[in-house]
Amino acid sequence: MSGRLGKWIVVEGIDGSGKTTQAKMLATKIDAFYTYEPGDSLVGEDVRNVLLKSEKTLHPLTEVFLLQADRIEHLQKIIIPKLEEGKNVVCDRYVGSTFAYQGYGRGVEFDKLESIVNIAISKVMPDLTILYDLPSEEVESRLAGRSTDRIENEGKEFRKRVEQGYKALSKRFGWKVIDASGSIDEVANRTLGEIKSAFGEAWIGNIDG
Amino acid sequence: MSGRLGKWIVVEGIDGSGKTTQAKMLATKIDAFYTYEPGDSLVGEDVRNVLLKSEKTLHPLTEVFLLQADRIEHLQKIIIPKLEEGKNVVCDRYVGSTFAYQGYGRGVEFDKLESIVNIAISKVMPDLTILYDLPSEEVESRLAGRSTDRIENEGKEFRKRVEQGYKALSKRFGWKVIDASGSIDEVANRTLGEIKSAFGEAWIGNIDG
Repeated sequence: MSGRLGKWIVVEGIDGSGKTTQAKMLATKIDAFYTYEPGDSLVGEDVRNVLLKSEKTLHPLTEVFLLQADRIEHLQKIIIPKLEEGKNVVCDRYVGSTFAYQGYGRGVEFDKLESIVNIAISKVMPDLTILYDLPSEEVESRLAGRSTDRIENEGKEFRKRVEQGYKALSKRFGWKVIDASGSIDEVANRTLGEIKSAFGEAWIGNIDG
Repeated sequence: MSGRLGKWIVVEGIDGSGKTTQAKMLATKIDAFYTYEPGDSLVGEDVRNVLLKSEKTLHPLTEVFLLQADRIEHLQKIIIPKLEEGKNVVCDRYVGSTFAYQGYGRGVEFDKLESIVNIAISKVMPDLTILYDLPSEEVESRLAGRSTDRIENEGKEFRKRVEQGYKALSKRFGWKVIDASGSIDEVANRTLGEIKSAFGEAWIGNIDG
């Protein structure tokens, strides 16, 4: 990698936390390229098909390896080139999702995940990771009306493990945690506050102007 | 894994070495289940589609991770259960192919591959690995009439690196190397000779009887 000129922000959280809405609003606000995992890479559609639409029961490690394949393509062919050309990037999910879903959710050992992930990403990490935190009761009511995929179908117990995993991960890795309750605009304002505190008022000012 | 009652033999070699023909003949001879990588797993068809039929240029590590995903499913859901129920297994390609093709062929570092592969297979290895060795000139003439996939299309230079890699790997891992030149029956006899020397005359006798 020659040099990252843009800022790279990752948003994490369970489905129903509102992170995708917030990520897209943030990308517009700071003139960033919005992208997501899994699936926004050259092999992403195929990988996402196997992962999310399959009726088959996959071994937990199979999920981990398929997701890293997608991540490598995404990182090397999309995220890094955008950052190098000076574009800011907002990425919906990154390695935190692997630790939360395949680690806390499915029970794959942390050390094993860390070894796999570190090789996949060559330790290339974002400038800032934001976790959108919402009590699982509120998540359940938000999800009630949605159609779900294979991973989301795992049910309440699984989502509860993932939610608690996310909290533990945010402490371990020093992520910014944002309260995701309240209106969309309220959460967007909290997000912008965290961006200012991470990169400075001047950085936001330059983009706004 | 509760206990392996069957014997597990892996055949390795470059395309055109005749290993698939030999593997199938051997499986019939010793009453073994024949299977192959990549592609003979629950997710295999999807993974094989991405890997071999794609027009896209994949990052070398993406190939490695996709192949391990297929391998995990294959090992956990097909190979290990067969061995545990007392069936012998002949598997066409296994971890040696990752070292030969993605390592020597594509240039991914050995240590990185070893870490990834060891996590994927939990260090579960076959009882015997056979390498079919054929001078690359003879391979080229055998391949001349065949339709080829994305990996085989890499050309002579790539195949030469893979062939030399296989030789180095056979020394490193103590594989049995079989001269793959001559008639199909000649090579089949050499193969049976190696099986007898590995597992004993009695083992073959029991199966034949």
